[in-house]
Amino acid sequence: MRVGYLGPAATFTHLAVSSCFQNGAEHVAYRTIPECIDAAVAGEVDFAFVPLENALEGSVNLTIDYLIHEQPLPIVGEMTLPIHQHLLVHPSRENAWKELDKIYSHSHAIAQCHKFLHRQFPSVPYEYANSTGAAAKFVSDHPELNIGVIANDMAASTYELKIVKRDIQDYRDNHTRFVILSPDENISFEVNSKLSSRPKTTLMVMLPQDESGALHRVLSAFSWRNLNLSKIESRPTKTGLGHYFFIIDIEKAFDEVLIPGAMQELEALGCKVKLLGAYQSYQL
Amino acid sequence: MRVGYLGPAATFTHLAVSSCFQNGAEHVAYRTIPECIDAAVAGEVDFAFVPLENALEGSVNLTIDYLIHEQPLPIVGEMTLPIHQHLLVHPSRENAWKELDKIYSHSHAIAQCHKFLHRQFPSVPYEYANSTGAAAKFVSDHPELNIGVIANDMAASTYELKIVKRDIQDYRDNHTRFVILSPDENISFEVNSKLSSRPKTTLMVMLPQDESGALHRVLSAFSWRNLNLSKIESRPTKTGLGHYFFIIDIEKAFDEVLIPGAMQELEALGCKVKLLGAYQSYQL
Repeated sequence: MRVGYLGPAATFTHLAVSSCFQNGAEHVAYRTIPECIDAAVAGEVDFAFVPLENALEGSVNLTIDYLIHEQPLPIVGEMTLPIHQHLLVHPSRENAWKELDKIYSHSHAIAQCHKFLHRQFPSVPYEYANSTGAAAKFVSDHPELNIGVIANDMAASTYELKIVKRDIQDYRDNHTRFVILSPDENISFEVNSKLSSRPKTTLMVMLPQDESGALHRVLSAFSWRNLNLSKIESRPTKTGLGHYFFIIDIEKAFDEVLIPGAMQELEALGCKVKLLGAYQSYQL
Repeated sequence: MRVGYLGPAATFTHLAVSSCFQNGAEHVAYRTIPECIDAAVAGEVDFAFVPLENALEGSVNLTIDYLIHEQPLPIVGEMTLPIHQHLLVHPSRENAWKELDKIYSHSHAIAQCHKFLHRQFPSVPYEYANSTGAAAKFVSDHPELNIGVIANDMAASTYELKIVKRDIQDYRDNHTRFVILSPDENISFEVNSKLSSRPKTTLMVMLPQDESGALHRVLSAFSWRNLNLSKIESRPTKTGLGHYFFIIDIEKAFDEVLIPGAMQELEALGCKVKLLGAYQSYQL
């Protein structure tokens, strides 16, 4: 079994892949989310494993938009992982970490540690990397530079960096949701036996036109069936400001009556409706 | 009159400030959105001018989150600007632009030109800068590097770069909304007389708890009053995955009956409701 993920090695996505799948799965790193999804479409890997939403920073828009506009792969699973951010430096600079010239990481990681950075390093500039893993690799490759990186434990061990300050994220309850995508919506796979799971269904709904109360009517279709929505997210359709589609998560397995009934009614009212996935949500 | 904006010079925010205000306003660049908002709170500038939403990439989460969680400044105006992205190089490299080593820009600008880059530069790596203006300045300062930058006309003239390919954004209807913030919600200011305007009201609503149908009931309060919502956006409350607040835009001036009535009812139902601004939305 081959699992493509948003690389390089030791990103949070890599950590999630390692926590989710049983030993024996081969992990293949991709440079970007679209490349990872494309690889699953092309059959290079059986699954694409990419981030979807962070508890602090919100949705990973690139994943949602690529699935909706470019490559409509079904969601076959979801994994939720707690996020612990640490400050790492090159081992040769372990004792000088309070006088860094620059801090390097993914923009989300920097945002998640905003208060810590503001307090501890008020005048140190930061720079965005494509991922926490890429930032850690850069710091490891450049011992001559006096820079720190925000990344996870796996990055510290993979790139032989020193953790000088643990758990620097501003909020404790920081989690990220990752989705597992596959061209085969009925594919079966074994996960780590320590994970708990619950069923979920995700739909995309596009309203017929900009009319007062259209979203209200859409939500009515779920509300009167007692279908609890755990999330509703609006994203632009890319046809101009003010035009949106909605991603709706239902805390329920896809059944034969209630969810299909809601979908049919919404279509009859002129909405475009699509099942993005009916799957298990895993967590440690 | 002093207007703080997300700098450096020649960002799209700077272009929007220049298009919005009458001559005579002093423009003050800030390095980040929080610093710009903080400057308005501290009275260093009369207004903070920052991006809120792009038609392709969606909301600028940092602006929304900083207003909700850190500095609750009222919205006193809004400006919508069409976005044209161009490929710029150092003038000494004008004839060699098809063999770039790297492309540098803000992550949103790179995302907006994804198809162009995929087609024209399939194997050229890109790197994220803090802004399109900062990326243009870097390319201008480093003629020895063979890199291209995605930025606007103002960046080309400010940093003396050469536009080698115009309008490379993937979608034509690309606009960005900017908000004008001020500690004085009744502040008056003159805008460019060529701008058209319409009234808008923006609210924040936090649901009482995770209960089935809560959002449906919130939308009912607007729907039965025929208050047309042009946008509803969910953002995480930062207290854990699955907890959201909602930003709601109403296409109507704040009145004395309908909107206050809806707000009072929502509060009586246990929601937290806040008026973020009642203002004019300007466009060219």
